[in-house]
Amino acid sequence: MAKFPSPIQKLIMQLKKLPGVGAKTAERYVFEMLSWDAEVLSNLSESLKSVQKQIQPCPSCSCLKSDAECEFCDPFKRDPTCLCIVSSPKDIYPIEETRIFKGMYHVLGGMLSPLHGYNAERFDIIKIKNRIDALGVTDIVLALDSTLEGDATSLFLKEELSSCNVRISRLAFGIPLGSSLEYVDPGTLTRAFLGRHLF
Amino acid sequence: MAKFPSPIQKLIMQLKKLPGVGAKTAERYVFEMLSWDAEVLSNLSESLKSVQKQIQPCPSCSCLKSDAECEFCDPFKRDPTCLCIVSSPKDIYPIEETRIFKGMYHVLGGMLSPLHGYNAERFDIIKIKNRIDALGVTDIVLALDSTLEGDATSLFLKEELSSCNVRISRLAFGIPLGSSLEYVDPGTLTRAFLGRHLF
Repeated sequence: MAKFPSPIQKLIMQLKKLPGVGAKTAERYVFEMLSWDAEVLSNLSESLKSVQKQIQPCPSCSCLKSDAECEFCDPFKRDPTCLCIVSSPKDIYPIEETRIFKGMYHVLGGMLSPLHGYNAERFDIIKIKNRIDALGVTDIVLALDSTLEGDATSLFLKEELSSCNVRISRLAFGIPLGSSLEYVDPGTLTRAFLGRHLF
Repeated sequence: MAKFPSPIQKLIMQLKKLPGVGAKTAERYVFEMLSWDAEVLSNLSESLKSVQKQIQPCPSCSCLKSDAECEFCDPFKRDPTCLCIVSSPKDIYPIEETRIFKGMYHVLGGMLSPLHGYNAERFDIIKIKNRIDALGVTDIVLALDSTLEGDATSLFLKEELSSCNVRISRLAFGIPLGSSLEYVDPGTLTRAFLGRHLF
């Protein structure tokens, strides 16, 4: 591809850092943005500049918050006896969307992954135990990915927290809603068989 | 989806204006950007703020340029007797990539599209004719999309420029390189039959 004028080339390189964005998509974004009203582009620029400062992790649960109070740590709105452990703050929003969980959250900030050098030391287990005591948690839900890392982290947490007087559960694995058996992969089908229930 | 903290929600709405970006992709971009170094994000913000001011259309050919001189209007580097007419400045870069065209460009800034209210008045035909005279153009290449709008615009330009003493050609239509006949759509195949050549 012929070299674009350097300000365009620079912006393309910067946008290519976004997940799933290659040179072609970045080019498309840049040409689109060149056609925007200057004000729209300037507002986007301002938002990008300020978003990291405006968003802070809650010191207690590590969920993302923009105001003084964390909406997920309010004991009057959420059930403090049920604690859902997730890997990343972004995992909370699809769970909230279901409206099935009314408890509190705890963000681990990652999963066990020896390949990436993420070992058990990265988890602050003491902090989780302190929260269990302070909130009077009776139920822990492990809402971690159905990957090797998710399995390892779930097992690790189960062992670490077994000394606390809590019921620990993990999200069910099986056939996604609306799927035909024909198209379900063998791994998922195996988990669905192992997790079958009386009907 | 549960409401994100408002700075995140705002940024999602702004990124959704990009072509092909829906709520899910915008969310993915935002969470990725939250994890970037503050400097990387701040640099992107600066680029967005300045790109429209740094990029200007060449007053002669309407190609995008960032420097004082338009690289496509330099008569010592490009052949002024051959003029390629394109719809948008972004069409120039894939043509440049082929390295097969060494002439100059003229950006129309759009195509005839009565449905969108784009009529013949939007084209500055006088400007094209003036350039043809000034540059001593003998060959005009119409490099317009193979769409209804591209066909209409090509026909219109052919008629308008027929009074000038120039040879007018349009890019060939046919089977794309590397395609199996089996997968070529009937419209393309029809154009390939109509445009077949002695072999």
